[in-house]
Amino acid sequence: MTFSLYLPDCASKKTPVPTLYWLSGLTCSDDNFSTKSGAQRYASQHGIALVIPDTSPRGDDVADDPAGEYDLGLGASFYVNATQAPWKQHYQMYDYILEALPSLLETHCPINQKRAIAGHSMGGHGALMLALRNPTAYQSVSALSPICQPMTCPWGKKAFSAYLGDDQEYWKPYDSSHLIAHSKHKLPIMIDQGEADEFLTDQLKTQTLVNAAQLANYPIACRFHPDYDHSYYFIASFIGDHIAFHAQHLK
Amino acid sequence: MTFSLYLPDCASKKTPVPTLYWLSGLTCSDDNFSTKSGAQRYASQHGIALVIPDTSPRGDDVADDPAGEYDLGLGASFYVNATQAPWKQHYQMYDYILEALPSLLETHCPINQKRAIAGHSMGGHGALMLALRNPTAYQSVSALSPICQPMTCPWGKKAFSAYLGDDQEYWKPYDSSHLIAHSKHKLPIMIDQGEADEFLTDQLKTQTLVNAAQLANYPIACRFHPDYDHSYYFIASFIGDHIAFHAQHLK
Repeated sequence: MTFSLYLPDCASKKTPVPTLYWLSGLTCSDDNFSTKSGAQRYASQHGIALVIPDTSPRGDDVADDPAGEYDLGLGASFYVNATQAPWKQHYQMYDYILEALPSLLETHCPINQKRAIAGHSMGGHGALMLALRNPTAYQSVSALSPICQPMTCPWGKKAFSAYLGDDQEYWKPYDSSHLIAHSKHKLPIMIDQGEADEFLTDQLKTQTLVNAAQLANYPIACRFHPDYDHSYYFIASFIGDHIAFHAQHLK
Repeated sequence: MTFSLYLPDCASKKTPVPTLYWLSGLTCSDDNFSTKSGAQRYASQHGIALVIPDTSPRGDDVADDPAGEYDLGLGASFYVNATQAPWKQHYQMYDYILEALPSLLETHCPINQKRAIAGHSMGGHGALMLALRNPTAYQSVSALSPICQPMTCPWGKKAFSAYLGDDQEYWKPYDSSHLIAHSKHKLPIMIDQGEADEFLTDQLKTQTLVNAAQLANYPIACRFHPDYDHSYYFIASFIGDHIAFHAQHLK
């Protein structure tokens, strides 16, 4: 499993720093965020490490979409623990992000156990879902352009059918709009969404999550931005705000 | 010819803004700087437009290196006016950057005629060379990891031989270390160079330019940075300083 790690200058074994986990979107590797977001500047200012996992397992023996499409298999794990063949052998990303990777890093790197999590698009889904299910594992969660109700969107339905099977009962623990309606422990959530995002209506469904949160009295700081699209320019424009948000909760 | 343009919010026909031309390095297109540098944030703060040309002409009928190497032909113009076949038909990048592109932009976009120029590696060479030859066309020039003496480095010798022929007299007008020794009109120059840059000794030769400038009493603000390499992470780390530098001179 490949990942990227950014350590601020101030990190040392004597002064370990908190960590922001960043989950990337469909087709990305651990490289996109580190080369395009400009996040390191803010992580340096706030003394926060950045951990940027890959978006799926990789390797010649790892299952991939037989049709070769971008939204299933390599680069498209959706951060679930797959239960269906052939995926279940390697696609255990939920456990990897929640346990295996932090355990490795907190043993070997100058970071402490204070964690926040964030992501974009499929990674925004991953961040929200992991944090809603494990609100004591993270101090805060944020997302840009997240997939907010994967059970009902084309990307999510295709992926969940393949990885989790056809019984939608098994999809619910991976659906943030479902999870937020049943959450007891509330953690700080921030979402940014571009109004010119070409995926907003069909795939992302941000307003569905906002509505579910309001019904559940779960506060979300959700901002809609006119004219912004789904690209990394949107991430680069607002990533500083997200890191400042997490910095408040990681101190 | 492809280029990228960033206009800050404040730019309008009534309030045109000054422009920073950014010349990219070998293998780049107009895309690398706009996606990886994070420069837009600073250009927005300072009210400066960014123009990011491609690094060569493109198209099926444009000559390319028969050997297919990265340092000649497509993506490797070195910003000269080629005099040799087959290059001379399309490789007239010096005229394009100095005249054709500004003329087009200043006619059709909300920018004024105040220009600065900057670049990285081969583009740092291009920026320094164009500004040293045309010190009244630009208010200031800066470079990150520039090729400082192309006449004597492997990249430069290969490109200049192909584009300009074997007579090195025709190379001198494109060599910044030569030009700076003969410059009368001095314009503000800023250079950043990483000390862990794998190309520093053989290809970039920054100290040669610094020495030539000192001999000519030409002030250069040149900073060497321990540990930084030739990558876009270096550019992203210091591009804010460069745009602030140009902003002083573009007002």
